[in-house]
This record gives sequence, structure tokens and C-alpha cells, in this order.
Amino acid sequence: MILQETLDIATRGRGTQEISAQIAAIVSRSGIHTGLAHVFICHTSASLLLSENADPDVRRDLERFLQRIAPDGAPWYAHDAEGPDDMAAHIRSVLTASELTLPVRAGRLALGTWQGVYLWEHRHAAHRRRVIVTVHGEAA
Amino acid sequence: MILQETLDIATRGRGTQEISAQIAAIVSRSGIHTGLAHVFICHTSASLLLSENADPDVRRDLERFLQRIAPDGAPWYAHDAEGPDDMAAHIRSVLTASELTLPVRAGRLALGTWQGVYLWEHRHAAHRRRVIVTVHGEAA
Amino acid sequence: MILQETLDIATRGRGTQEISAQIAAIVSRSGIHTGLAHVFICHTSASLLLSENADPDVRRDLERFLQRIAPDGAPWYAHDAEGPDDMAAHIRSVLTASELTLPVRAGRLALGTWQGVYLWEHRHAAHRRRVIVTVHGEAA
Repeated sequence: MILQETLDIATRGRGTQEISAQIAAIVSRSGIHTGLAHVFICHTSASLLLSENADPDVRRDLERFLQRIAPDGAPWYAHDAEGPDDMAAHIRSVLTASELTLPVRAGRLALGTWQGVYLWEHRHAAHRRRVIVTVHGEAA
Repeated sequence: MILQETLDIATRGRGTQEISAQIAAIVSRSGIHTGLAHVFICHTSASLLLSENADPDVRRDLERFLQRIAPDGAPWYAHDAEGPDDMAAHIRSVLTASELTLPVRAGRLALGTWQGVYLWEHRHAAHRRRVIVTVHGEAA
Repeated sequence: MILQETLDIATRGRGTQEISAQIAAIVSRSGIHTGLAHVFICHTSASLLLSENADPDVRRDLERFLQRIAPDGAPWYAHDAEGPDDMAAHIRSVLTASELTLPVRAGRLALGTWQGVYLWEHRHAAHRRRVIVTVHGEAA
């Protein structure tokens, strides 16, 4: 069994937004009991993050970390066609995840207690981002 | 065909331990000839690593690398609820892998000659870590 | 349905080469309409990259970025059996991807408009690299 759906997500510029519930809803609609859910972002300047979902300071510190190692407008970037956050966004995407596979168990997305899935917009401007979710496995 | 099993792994604090054999055993039990094995860690302060399995210095150098770019107790971390290694552990998890998909070929886990799968504990204290392994594909 | 094939790719030393077309060809041969394509590199000193495929400066800047954070011959590397690029190559592999899962939709590899899949050789010498591609899902 397989179900593939596309999410169209509006971002408000650089930052994270949780998409765990939207993925869980697709898992639920799939009717799959045991399997996997694959999440893929069709862009190279926004990415996915699997991280701690309790204290928002964790995501703020992750943001600071990326700003430190891949700063906007570093003088050695050759690629700056779309502005100082263009190349930084590509580096940030490579260091995080463009796709994630998550277990489905007993008909539900089997994340750990403190795990959430986030879409991470790396550009400063708001964007529309496309995410393809594919759930496959066996029914009960 | 699909087989999903959970590993409950005791760590001894920060460091790597190989789990290739435990994953290979689940692949063997699954009876799957051609397919994929997915490995997922249900935590955000421990992660997975696919790396060189011959010289232990490789993993020591990887440890040093993470300590350099994501040091314990960096003064700019806002999140330190569980101590100086708390936020460092989250960054280290993001930079490595929370999940891995590995090929199954001819009924066996098809890693390269020098590849091993490791669980990487990023907290200094010992922990129990849960790993969900899902093997799917076709029988011979 | 599942199709698993192996690519044997000759590299010319450090740098990226696009392999999207080779993966797309396997997807096409598989006859799968809706599913996933998994790409796995059987090495720990070369890796995979999903990145921007229009301006080559993006990959040049990614190369510079890795050279800055994981320089060849850093004085603190203990592992240098194969030369100054040996440990750097392992770190670069960990920070990028050893495996990628990509959606298959309507019988085609469903990458975003600006996404390409690259093999990234991290050693300075030319190598032969083995990549296992596994396509699974449902026919139309």
C-alpha cells in the first residue's frame, strides 16, 4: 500500500514551523498500520529538521548556530544572485535535511516523545514551499 | 513484506558504539532478499553515524570535530536546562543523522567494506536509547 | 515492486558530478508509477549531495565551505593513514549525505525544478565509487 500527497506550505521568512501534525494526518488517511512515512522538500534553500519540540530555545540556538557557521553575506561567497542570504540558505539546507523517513507503527507516526518535524525556511523573505509525503507499508 | 523491531540500547555516555550486527540480525530474521532497512533513533540528543569501521581514530577525530564546532557550554546557548552538554547534543544530532536507510541485497545488509553503523551518544551521562528498525522488500 | 541496480562511477578527484539522469533512468526502467527511489553510496570518503543545479558557483561555494570547516591536514587529526585529505573526507561525508530517498511520482523522479543529485568525491585522487539504487512502489 502507498499513499502520496503534496503539502503546500507558506513560510513567513527565516525560521522553523512544525509540520508533524500534517504528516501524521496523511499517515492516518493512508490506513497503513506498519510502515514508513517519507517527507521530501522540493527546494534547496529551505529544509527539514527533526528536533526537540518542547523548549523553543532549542530551535533559536540551532538558528544561531547556523548563522555562525554559514553567515549571510560571507565575503567569500561567489553565488549571491538573490542576495546575501542566498548562498547561506543553500549551505544551511545541506547541513540539515532535505528528506526524512519516519517509522509508522500501530497506524501512527512513531516519533519519540520529544521529537517534532519542522520545515526550516532559510531565506529571509516569505516563500511557498512544496513538500511531498509518501507513506507505504502494510494495513493491519 | 515488512518487519519492524525495536532495539533498546544502553549507552555509557558520550561516544559511539557499533550497531551494524544488530541491524543485520533483523534483516536476516525478516526473510527479505531485496529491499531496504530503515533505522530511526527516537531521540534528539543521540544520533546515528554511518562511517569508517576500521581505524577507531576516525571516530575519535569525528568526536573532536563536533566538540570544536558545537562545544559544550558555549556562552551563547540559551537552552541549558539539563547542563552544558544539553544544547551541544541537539546540534550534534542535527549535524549527523537521526535516521538512515540502508540497502538489503541477496538477503543481507549491503554496506560497503569499510562502512559501519554506529549509535552516537552525545550526552555525557549514560542513557537508554530506543531505535526502531523497519525492513521491507521482497522475498527471494 | 522493487528494482535494485548498482552504478559504478569513476570520479576525477575532489568535486561534484551530477547523477540525476542515471537515477532517473533506473526509475524509468522500474515501471514504478508511485513510490520512492533510494540512493546509497558504499563509501565513507565520498558522499551524495542534493543541491541547486543551475549556477555552478553554488557547488564551488559548498566546496569552499567544507574546506573551511574541515580543512585537509588539520593538525589535530589523528587519522591520516592515506594522507592529509583522508580524515577531511570522512568529516565531509558525515556532514553531507551517504544516502538519499527521493519521491517517484507519475513514473518519474520528482525532484524540484532546481534540485540535482550529485556524487561528491572528497579525496583528491580519482576513485571508482559504487552506488546502489533501489526503486520501490506501485505500478500505474
